Amino acid sequence: MTGVIKQLAILGSTGSIGQQTLEVVRAFPHRFRVIGLAAGRNVDLLARQINEFRPRLVYFQDGKSVQELADIKYAFLPPEDIASHPEVDTVVIATSGKSGLLPLMAAVKAGKEIALANKESLVAAGEVIIREAGLSKARILPIDSEHSAIWQCLKGEDQKPVRLVLTASGGPFLHYSKARLSKVTVEQALKHPSWRMGRKVTVDSATLMNKGLEVIEAHWLFDMPFESIKVLTHPQSIVHSLVEFVDGSVKAQLGCPDMRLPIQYALSYPERLPNPHLDRLNWDVMSNLTFGKVDPDVFPCLSLAIEAGKKGGTYPTVLCAADEVAVGLFLSRRLKFTDIARLVEQVLERHQMVTCPDLDDIMSADGWSREMASRFVSGDSPC
Amino acid sequence: MTGVIKQLAILGSTGSIGQQTLEVVRAFPHRFRVIGLAAGRNVDLLARQINEFRPRLVYFQDGKSVQELADIKYAFLPPEDIASHPEVDTVVIATSGKSGLLPLMAAVKAGKEIALANKESLVAAGEVIIREAGLSKARILPIDSEHSAIWQCLKGEDQKPVRLVLTASGGPFLHYSKARLSKVTVEQALKHPSWRMGRKVTVDSATLMNKGLEVIEAHWLFDMPFESIKVLTHPQSIVHSLVEFVDGSVKAQLGCPDMRLPIQYALSYPERLPNPHLDRLNWDVMSNLTFGKVDPDVFPCLSLAIEAGKKGGTYPTVLCAADEVAVGLFLSRRLKFTDIARLVEQVLERHQMVTCPDLDDIMSADGWSREMASRFVSGDSPC
Repeated sequence: MTGVIKQLAILGSTGSIGQQTLEVVRAFPHRFRVIGLAAGRNVDLLARQINEFRPRLVYFQDGKSVQELADIKYAFLPPEDIASHPEVDTVVIATSGKSGLLPLMAAVKAGKEIALANKESLVAAGEVIIREAGLSKARILPIDSEHSAIWQCLKGEDQKPVRLVLTASGGPFLHYSKARLSKVTVEQALKHPSWRMGRKVTVDSATLMNKGLEVIEAHWLFDMPFESIKVLTHPQSIVHSLVEFVDGSVKAQLGCPDMRLPIQYALSYPERLPNPHLDRLNWDVMSNLTFGKVDPDVFPCLSLAIEAGKKGGTYPTVLCAADEVAVGLFLSRRLKFTDIARLVEQVLERHQMVTCPDLDDIMSADGWSREMASRFVSGDSPC
Repeated sequence: MTGVIKQLAILGSTGSIGQQTLEVVRAFPHRFRVIGLAAGRNVDLLARQINEFRPRLVYFQDGKSVQELADIKYAFLPPEDIASHPEVDTVVIATSGKSGLLPLMAAVKAGKEIALANKESLVAAGEVIIREAGLSKARILPIDSEHSAIWQCLKGEDQKPVRLVLTASGGPFLHYSKARLSKVTVEQALKHPSWRMGRKVTVDSATLMNKGLEVIEAHWLFDMPFESIKVLTHPQSIVHSLVEFVDGSVKAQLGCPDMRLPIQYALSYPERLPNPHLDRLNWDVMSNLTFGKVDPDVFPCLSLAIEAGKKGGTYPTVLCAADEVAVGLFLSRRLKFTDIARLVEQVLERHQMVTCPDLDDIMSADGWSREMASRFVSGDSPC
């Protein structure tokens, strides 16, 4: 696509990934044009984005004040219609949690190129999405730094790798004991040591649920069995992931921890673009890269997620939904940090799996999981 | 070349790389056939190799006992003729020092695929060799672990990288002071902490001359300016080298320090083959990868080489030849370890460079350098 302007729709444009996507677009005005923006309730920021990027397609959750938002005319459409709009080349799905699922399905069915930051949708409905993408020839390009790293390492390699190694910063509590972890606050959990991200994914990083979701995401994106996906802690967040090949050779992708790099790579692929706003690795200070194992007793969310992924069917859906509820409750200070895993586990234990689910089964399992998770917390135990 | 048997000529078959190449061939008898073997004076080993691999083309330095060497009939040919023989698909040049130059030139002129372990020939005559390879469409595939790493990282990348980062184990004396270095013995210098290699390259690794030669080799193989090639010490010898791209993304290749991996990759390229004899990285013990700068006061050979490379012309030829003499003198205990750099520097200082040299200029500069280096040591100083 060298020299051709790529027309983008950005769903979740006021969130962390959405804003960073727009920073990349700003750096390359002759390569990318924003024709669709969708956001939740941060209408002030969305209005500024509309005035700057002048998209023709807009959505936000509070649709009443639609024509007051900006000086220009635009069509107000639901996210699914923006994601599948004929003029959109690439859909950036940068929403958080479940809200990415229906737009992702719409983009997949429309055969779009999809730059995916919303891992929950792929985790919750991986089987359905990958099946549909196979039919429509939609291409899902990862924005997650780990999956971008793997994708970059696989570039030019025709043979299937034998192992993917996802690195995990370990979040702010990497060396905490179980006891200490039970007392951490929302403020502490939101202070990620290396990455600038949204609130939900920052808490998921602190519990390592995020890494578990990424294992499931990698399973679907790269068609790899769970047994061939390994997780290593790597607190420096420089090595973003590694791939082991059949001959024993390993490739890794490295870079500063800055989401704009994987965002830009997904947008400009297969080309790489020089962006003066992105920091480069400083070779004079890179002195020590450490790697370690995750303690499953301290971070039970990782194994919970991998087990749900292995069981398949609607288990990952239930995992995602319960986690979304649990993180919300933690952020509103109604649940202890260590109870996030406990809540998710209890919901998973009660789930009756549907195998080979269709989208209705997914939506229904999602709803069941949310209700069940909320019930536990309200004290209205179903047991 | 899937399924097709590749016909190999291995020059330097009794050396370390030659023997390891034959180990790879043994592991894949249906992929590789040895049709040429050339060696120096280790005729006992060569005879065993001939009986095992039954090559049709043979060379060794003491040509008198030619028909007694083995039970089979073979043609006795000079290395250049083996390297350019029409039935040879790939020439593995695994000799040490200057002896690789003429066979390399012959293979290049014949448009062969060349798996090159002999970095000295490319350093001494890079300009001539790359020019000829451009005309004949010969392909030079690196066997050096660092260059193999870079080559693997560049696979599938169409854009030129912005930086190559060569890693250096640092050899056995990485943290030595200058004073301590002046007293090291041949035995100490030959004990490389991570790699199994020949004597010349092991001493070159200890002085870091090897890394300097590799910088020049990388300059020619990947058409990179010297300013864009960096060296980092990395004592674990796990990260074999790194490549930085225009967008700031970096790729690295990792593996156990075992030359059979880059040898096999060069032979099987673009395919990767599973080899049960090769160790795999043990993810459970990979805990710490360290990187640092080379102290130019303690290891002057690195800067000497890079400066010679930047000056170009016949300077790298003179560097290589003087180093080969100096290492030989050190191995025969006629020169102190720290005098290797001093000798090379003194010879370089007296050299009158020829720009855009042809092969005759190269051979003549090589001869001049050897004579000059020997004269210094005999006390017969030309000054």
